[in-house]
Amino acid sequence: MSSKTIKTFNPRTGNFLAQEHVISTPKELNQKVTDAQLAFMVYRNTSGNERAILLETIADEIEAVKEEILGIATLETGLPSGRIQGETGRTLGQLRLFAEVAQKEFWVEASIDTALPDRQPLPKSDIRKCLVPLGPIAVFGASNFPLAFSTAGGDTASALASGNPVIVKAHNSHLGTHQCICDAIVRALERCNLPKGIFSSIIDEDYELGAALVQHPGIKAVGFTGSFNGGTTLLDLVSKRKEPIPFYGEMGSINPIVLLSSALEDPKMVSTLMGSINMGVGQFCTNPGLILAIEGEAAQHFCSKMTDAIQQTLGEVMLNRAIYDKYEASIAKISSEKSYTLLGQGTKAQGALSVQPSLALTSGKKFLTHPKMSQEIFGPYSLIVLCEHQEELAEILMQIEGQLTLSFMGEETEFDEHVHLIALAQEKVGRIIFNSVPTGVEVGHSMIHGGPFPATTAPNSTSVGADAIKRFVRPVCFQDAPQSLLPMALQDENPLKIFRKINGKWSLDKI
Amino acid sequence: MSSKTIKTFNPRTGNFLAQEHVISTPKELNQKVTDAQLAFMVYRNTSGNERAILLETIADEIEAVKEEILGIATLETGLPSGRIQGETGRTLGQLRLFAEVAQKEFWVEASIDTALPDRQPLPKSDIRKCLVPLGPIAVFGASNFPLAFSTAGGDTASALASGNPVIVKAHNSHLGTHQCICDAIVRALERCNLPKGIFSSIIDEDYELGAALVQHPGIKAVGFTGSFNGGTTLLDLVSKRKEPIPFYGEMGSINPIVLLSSALEDPKMVSTLMGSINMGVGQFCTNPGLILAIEGEAAQHFCSKMTDAIQQTLGEVMLNRAIYDKYEASIAKISSEKSYTLLGQGTKAQGALSVQPSLALTSGKKFLTHPKMSQEIFGPYSLIVLCEHQEELAEILMQIEGQLTLSFMGEETEFDEHVHLIALAQEKVGRIIFNSVPTGVEVGHSMIHGGPFPATTAPNSTSVGADAIKRFVRPVCFQDAPQSLLPMALQDENPLKIFRKINGKWSLDKI
Repeated sequence: MSSKTIKTFNPRTGNFLAQEHVISTPKELNQKVTDAQLAFMVYRNTSGNERAILLETIADEIEAVKEEILGIATLETGLPSGRIQGETGRTLGQLRLFAEVAQKEFWVEASIDTALPDRQPLPKSDIRKCLVPLGPIAVFGASNFPLAFSTAGGDTASALASGNPVIVKAHNSHLGTHQCICDAIVRALERCNLPKGIFSSIIDEDYELGAALVQHPGIKAVGFTGSFNGGTTLLDLVSKRKEPIPFYGEMGSINPIVLLSSALEDPKMVSTLMGSINMGVGQFCTNPGLILAIEGEAAQHFCSKMTDAIQQTLGEVMLNRAIYDKYEASIAKISSEKSYTLLGQGTKAQGALSVQPSLALTSGKKFLTHPKMSQEIFGPYSLIVLCEHQEELAEILMQIEGQLTLSFMGEETEFDEHVHLIALAQEKVGRIIFNSVPTGVEVGHSMIHGGPFPATTAPNSTSVGADAIKRFVRPVCFQDAPQSLLPMALQDENPLKIFRKINGKWSLDKI
Repeated sequence: MSSKTIKTFNPRTGNFLAQEHVISTPKELNQKVTDAQLAFMVYRNTSGNERAILLETIADEIEAVKEEILGIATLETGLPSGRIQGETGRTLGQLRLFAEVAQKEFWVEASIDTALPDRQPLPKSDIRKCLVPLGPIAVFGASNFPLAFSTAGGDTASALASGNPVIVKAHNSHLGTHQCICDAIVRALERCNLPKGIFSSIIDEDYELGAALVQHPGIKAVGFTGSFNGGTTLLDLVSKRKEPIPFYGEMGSINPIVLLSSALEDPKMVSTLMGSINMGVGQFCTNPGLILAIEGEAAQHFCSKMTDAIQQTLGEVMLNRAIYDKYEASIAKISSEKSYTLLGQGTKAQGALSVQPSLALTSGKKFLTHPKMSQEIFGPYSLIVLCEHQEELAEILMQIEGQLTLSFMGEETEFDEHVHLIALAQEKVGRIIFNSVPTGVEVGHSMIHGGPFPATTAPNSTSVGADAIKRFVRPVCFQDAPQSLLPMALQDENPLKIFRKINGKWSLDKI
């Protein structure tokens, strides 16, 4: 064990917390991967029911220490109690959703093609297919979700649900929170009598150990939520591996909102947008960073109401020094550049890393000629772009890079008139929203939290919702296998009572 | 248009064929990608039924010229008529399977979570998800499958079925065959009144244009079947793109066969294995290149029968000069190396590129210490490895790299005694086979033709069977969308009459 330790930072007081966290060594990392590989031999053979019990037990163990988590998480992140409580609830909800998914076993996508021994010119074999887990998964904790996208967050829950061991690289912004969650998971593994190698974590002072983790031959996939720079740096390392593995990086987005005519005059629109821009100090990957409308009197009026509103907001502390510095530098640059108009700023609250919410304005023409304007500014900031006409707005949607979400605000008749815009949007995003803001990602069976690059590195996946499990599995088929050697999902009797594709048709039948 | 042309080679006569094929230019490549992007705007909105009609029409147009294809393909590849006829049938079967998949629409994986407007503390939105096509797909023709894995092969069929335009990089071994198929596809697109940009192809003298194709920003995924060197070279180029895209490379494998005790004495085993080793002059990615057994009297007897059998086989011509040279060099190296025993060789048939089928022997100990022995030798060759004991055999299965298939030959009681070996096998392969040889890949709903690296670059996919369609799609979800703006798969009335997940449960119901 290394003797080097680090501490976490309180963004309100500007002081480091007392608790010391021991930096992991490369040797420990190797040992943890080896332990995960050995644990996989056991864990891959557990039933969905056993995995469901593990996930439920993890949720229970976390719930049992939620007051302790609340205490440390608010100190480390500067996020208010309500937000941490909400995020704890969401984390428990995710663990329990994946418990349900694991227990019901339908994620295995069982498919059976029955034999035709008398087929001419050649007999047809019995072929049965299902999904199996990949092996040890590396999960990177996210700065902005100390719970829901960190140690026991969505990536961990979905990887465990499908039978994969997990090694978490903790985020240095909230190591105390991480420790509480680790302890809860270890207790859950003990209670479930499962190998402790199923879950482990590393703490890194800098980036070396995280880099070593994604390059380790024992790691079979990576789940990452964070910045574009962090994501693409890791992706680069992954692509240099001898064995290619999937890298699921969710790297944020500016989540455009298109305001159609009626929306500009909707009396609730300004407060709805303000709520979304400022939620969690704007530190969400679904923060609405771009508001598009057609210029005119209504748009001018809307802008002045938005300006009033932003000036009345109170900025809060950001998560850590790096995020704070980057936000401050970005806003300083915007106020100094002629191509933007800084419409207004809120006031700073008490606290070391407190920032001012900010709203800027530009024209469609300028937006189209300044690619930097479409880059995410992480924090309570949004850019209103007023377009000369519909064609310019369409051009922006055509030119814009991949996004997590795109929202349309308006009446149904207006949507029908703008079908071409909605079709364009579908090319660019993972989620198209009508008359809602992008913040508040529902964790359910149909949610897609993903999208084309650079929103993610894997547009064919989601990191929220039941389908997140598909990231950590691969298909295997069995040809003419004896019943006793088949996974339960593929046995004649359908002991799991799941829907299976039988000769191409969904069915609950036995064979 | 370039004035440079190339000709294909007749591996029997050793002469070039008369027909000249015009090399594409980089400018033409760019134009084809642009045309594909424009065609995508139309094609992505076609119904499953329209795509099914296109695929059926392509099949019909190919079938109408099958005699012409037979003539040119046998000349260009040296493969016998029966093989080309069989492969034509398989190609038509694939196109028609994907027509069925497109028409039935269940590949869209529709999922609907209904709204809960009264939920506390926040209302729940209506969220609906389905899969949509990615955009223009690059497909690389394979040397060893002039039809089934080339111009209108599985990759093209599955990409078209899900609404993606295709640009094929033709394989230089069979450009005349390629031209026949291209013409058939163009006629089908005309008959279906669809934009011709949906399908196009390029011919390259060397590797530059193929490299430019996979790096083109308009290309959204790549399907490749070929050598490890070709596949990893393209993967390297893909990983240097600004926008990462999926690269589905199927790069072959040595397809180990484990002979349990009873199998060594099975009177049909020798002829079964010989048939598989020599099928198509061993030029299959599923060729059994490794035969594992425990040494002893039965194994010795089996080896001598295998030696007799290989000596009685007649070698045929290989597909092209490069493949022939590589095979000859590999076998020469084996006969000169002390670690192998060259058990026997067949005789060469008439023909310029004719080779001798070859069988070698080594010990488990030597196999474990010579990693080169587990590399594929493309052609009619297999290596018998006699292990000292079960533990050594298990060690080989543990050490071996990812494979497309792994077969176990024996009686059911023996399988039960070797459950640990079968569990090990599951970690390494896409398909586990009981009492059959790996050649002969059934095209169906449950087939997995894939496996961990280096068998493929994407172990979570298959390049054969209905699930191949999943390679070229991504999910999109719609939040609170009006009915008229939803894809048909997600509309309340379920107009496509498909199984959908409704609040997590499979159902044919309306909403």
